[in-house]
Amino acid sequence: MGKEITSRSQDYSQWYNDLILKSQLADYSAVRGCMVIKPYGFALWENMRDVLDKMFKDTGHVNAYFPLFVPKSLFEAEEKNAEGFAKECAVVTHYRLKTDPDKKGKLIVDPEAKLEEELVVRPTSEAIIWNTYKTWIQSYRDLPLLINQWANVVRWEMRTRLFLRTAEFLWQEGHTAHATKEEAIDETKKMLEVYADFVENYMAVPVIKGVKTPNERFAGAEDTYCIEALMQDGKALQAGTSHFLGQNFAKAFDVKFSDKTNKLDYVWATSWGVSTRLIGGLVMAHSDDDGLILPPRIAPLQVVIVPIYKGDEEKGIINNKVQELLKQFKNLGIRVKYDDNDNARPGWKFAEYEMKGVPVRIAIGTRDLSNNVVEVARRDTKQKTSVDINGIVFYVKELLEEIQLHMFNTAKKYRDEHITKVDDWSEFINVLDTKTGFVAAHWDGTAETEEKIKELTKATIRCIPLNNQQENGKCILTGNPSKERVLFARAY
Amino acid sequence: MGKEITSRSQDYSQWYNDLILKSQLADYSAVRGCMVIKPYGFALWENMRDVLDKMFKDTGHVNAYFPLFVPKSLFEAEEKNAEGFAKECAVVTHYRLKTDPDKKGKLIVDPEAKLEEELVVRPTSEAIIWNTYKTWIQSYRDLPLLINQWANVVRWEMRTRLFLRTAEFLWQEGHTAHATKEEAIDETKKMLEVYADFVENYMAVPVIKGVKTPNERFAGAEDTYCIEALMQDGKALQAGTSHFLGQNFAKAFDVKFSDKTNKLDYVWATSWGVSTRLIGGLVMAHSDDDGLILPPRIAPLQVVIVPIYKGDEEKGIINNKVQELLKQFKNLGIRVKYDDNDNARPGWKFAEYEMKGVPVRIAIGTRDLSNNVVEVARRDTKQKTSVDINGIVFYVKELLEEIQLHMFNTAKKYRDEHITKVDDWSEFINVLDTKTGFVAAHWDGTAETEEKIKELTKATIRCIPLNNQQENGKCILTGNPSKERVLFARAY
Repeated sequence: MGKEITSRSQDYSQWYNDLILKSQLADYSAVRGCMVIKPYGFALWENMRDVLDKMFKDTGHVNAYFPLFVPKSLFEAEEKNAEGFAKECAVVTHYRLKTDPDKKGKLIVDPEAKLEEELVVRPTSEAIIWNTYKTWIQSYRDLPLLINQWANVVRWEMRTRLFLRTAEFLWQEGHTAHATKEEAIDETKKMLEVYADFVENYMAVPVIKGVKTPNERFAGAEDTYCIEALMQDGKALQAGTSHFLGQNFAKAFDVKFSDKTNKLDYVWATSWGVSTRLIGGLVMAHSDDDGLILPPRIAPLQVVIVPIYKGDEEKGIINNKVQELLKQFKNLGIRVKYDDNDNARPGWKFAEYEMKGVPVRIAIGTRDLSNNVVEVARRDTKQKTSVDINGIVFYVKELLEEIQLHMFNTAKKYRDEHITKVDDWSEFINVLDTKTGFVAAHWDGTAETEEKIKELTKATIRCIPLNNQQENGKCILTGNPSKERVLFARAY
Repeated sequence: MGKEITSRSQDYSQWYNDLILKSQLADYSAVRGCMVIKPYGFALWENMRDVLDKMFKDTGHVNAYFPLFVPKSLFEAEEKNAEGFAKECAVVTHYRLKTDPDKKGKLIVDPEAKLEEELVVRPTSEAIIWNTYKTWIQSYRDLPLLINQWANVVRWEMRTRLFLRTAEFLWQEGHTAHATKEEAIDETKKMLEVYADFVENYMAVPVIKGVKTPNERFAGAEDTYCIEALMQDGKALQAGTSHFLGQNFAKAFDVKFSDKTNKLDYVWATSWGVSTRLIGGLVMAHSDDDGLILPPRIAPLQVVIVPIYKGDEEKGIINNKVQELLKQFKNLGIRVKYDDNDNARPGWKFAEYEMKGVPVRIAIGTRDLSNNVVEVARRDTKQKTSVDINGIVFYVKELLEEIQLHMFNTAKKYRDEHITKVDDWSEFINVLDTKTGFVAAHWDGTAETEEKIKELTKATIRCIPLNNQQENGKCILTGNPSKERVLFARAY
């Protein structure tokens, strides 16, 4: 273990793949573009999910579950949405297999079991949900409707990468219905804040909150709010989106409500989601050439204890002491593991838990123990400290908080240093190519210029930051007048 | 609300459907055979899932996530399993839609986006998981592998019913790998015990643990263990299954491990699952003509408080008192709701919470309050008691436990009264038709007789109970010799 992954400087992309596999977060599968989330990766996702789920419930949302399949006729009802996703839809056309008459033991699709109407495997659930909301919403008393679902979705991507872009992924999708436009916009912004809170305070990844350009909007939305994060290679990653859908889906599915004066109007909508993609972002924002670095608040394991001993007697002494510590850690709600496996040497274990990004490692040897100390190593800075064993659990509890904060600050420093104001085209290209990160530049506001810049540089407008400073300037490409800078970057 | 559902005596099946819809557990969807699990139903499922998940983790299992799709060539690898599920498979054949050239705004399946190999939407995940285990298991050190997944699966059933039989359903599926046959059988039995514990002690539904006949086994299993429950209409419901898979999947996917002596052998397997079907069983085991009756340990709401007042002043007095109570309830970890909605009368609210099966209702009026009492109504027996408001939360906490126990005992009494020993064919038919329930009868052990009995009576062998009493007898149909009684019933 340990030194077996490609280094970041050598090949960042290969480093990422090596790391995901080596740290046991995920594995490739036999299905094109789909991955297996391994137990360690899934434990991480569970922690993320549980925190988010509580945040959603604390803001008044409830969970429900809608069908995996969307009949084609519903799917196409909201035209922009359908157009946006049509090219990447897995489609169920048959409902039965039968024995292959020509090959023993093999199966073929039964041509007689063709569906009258094809079913799209949901790439997102607006269509099926708004078709349902139609029967649930009649009056203002039925609003707001604040529903979230945790689900798998499928988008047939041509180029896939573990976590970052997979044909099937896990996510949550909130779908809310409101009586007024203002209320829907407030909800859209509120959920963006929830996402920012989660990503910054749990994942320790700083984000920029902003609005997408029309070009980059969710298909079917009036406005897409987003949080954008920066990876260690200077590329941006969209970490979450919250969409104000206007009345588009209400109109497509004829969802009206009567207000207090009995006037009928279409319902206002939002939708918002984050996915297992966040795990990819988490890995790329923090980890190093020795493995993952996981923020304590969501790490599956927060502390690992490794005994260092010769023979059963020494091990017995250490075991006794550790049993006490385990109880104390668990009482404090700290996720701890004692690795007393005899088949691996301490050095091998150290490397393994470094690879897995466990925030704190405690090594306990008999000589240390006789001096009443243990060695505490933090994963983020690799600092090792000899600590008095009395009160060690409180020391570690504080250290976990310190690591959480330090990880955020480190990532924020890097991110802040990688927002560069640029007013000149050759400098624009130069920064993108060499310094990398976000480039704050003026843009003339047209889709044509945005497209042209993307074509020339592979950089996209990540967002127009919320509360963006207004200043007169000239478009970086066309020189046409502009009122504000927007953030460009190459992105995942 | 309240009296709007069909009564059980009038039409049990219609009562069930009415109840599921009226109590807001679920709704029909636009997709054939698929349902929408509404927030109230999903909250119930979340409680069930969380308890089960903890039980799985406490017995050493971890969660992971495997792909939704199974390539046809993998699906057909274990022949019996494939044969068993082939007739009910949703099949993805294409990965793209395109604009219909003949109809504006419509989409068609793009014939150029046909998959080289069709993908089956998982009806169960043995195939995709064992294909993955092949790469994870090399040595005895990699065993046992104890993995569970929470997922959606699809089985294209022709006749569907809300919760009981839907084309898509949510479930958990455990898939474990072991070095020895004994260990795998132990695991199979252990998980059956976990299921029995859950269904009896949380759902308050008594179960009979047993083994399926070869006819009723899971396709690809060597042995299927099951828990069988009895519904109020005297029909049985299979509530959970745990399969000993032998080496069938290991052989189909070539999964071998080297033991301590470096000898290679195929791995032994189990799989086990329960699904949202349990919710259907829960409803049918307990509820009445006024609505659901939910066991406190998994009820989304355990207590509802309804104020009875005239005017704002009275309401204000009640509100103050209730705020105190809410805090106390929450401190005790009791799930409580205060329904102070002005738009509905108390009687309407009473009926609503009866429909939703909330175990305890507290009504607080100003006159009661001046006497320091409140009215406590329990949902299961409908008893109302005037209770001193001091210490009311502790009274309710105990009452919830009493209700839980009483529900189990009521269901158990009914179930025990509906196990009938029968030794005569005409009596066999008579009991099935009139008394209903389980019939304990001798069977000659042949698949032919089992089939014939099913054909003649619609009754199936639900199970051969564990630790079944051995006694000589004659087969109820053929008169051939038999060593033990088995349990027959008509079933869902």
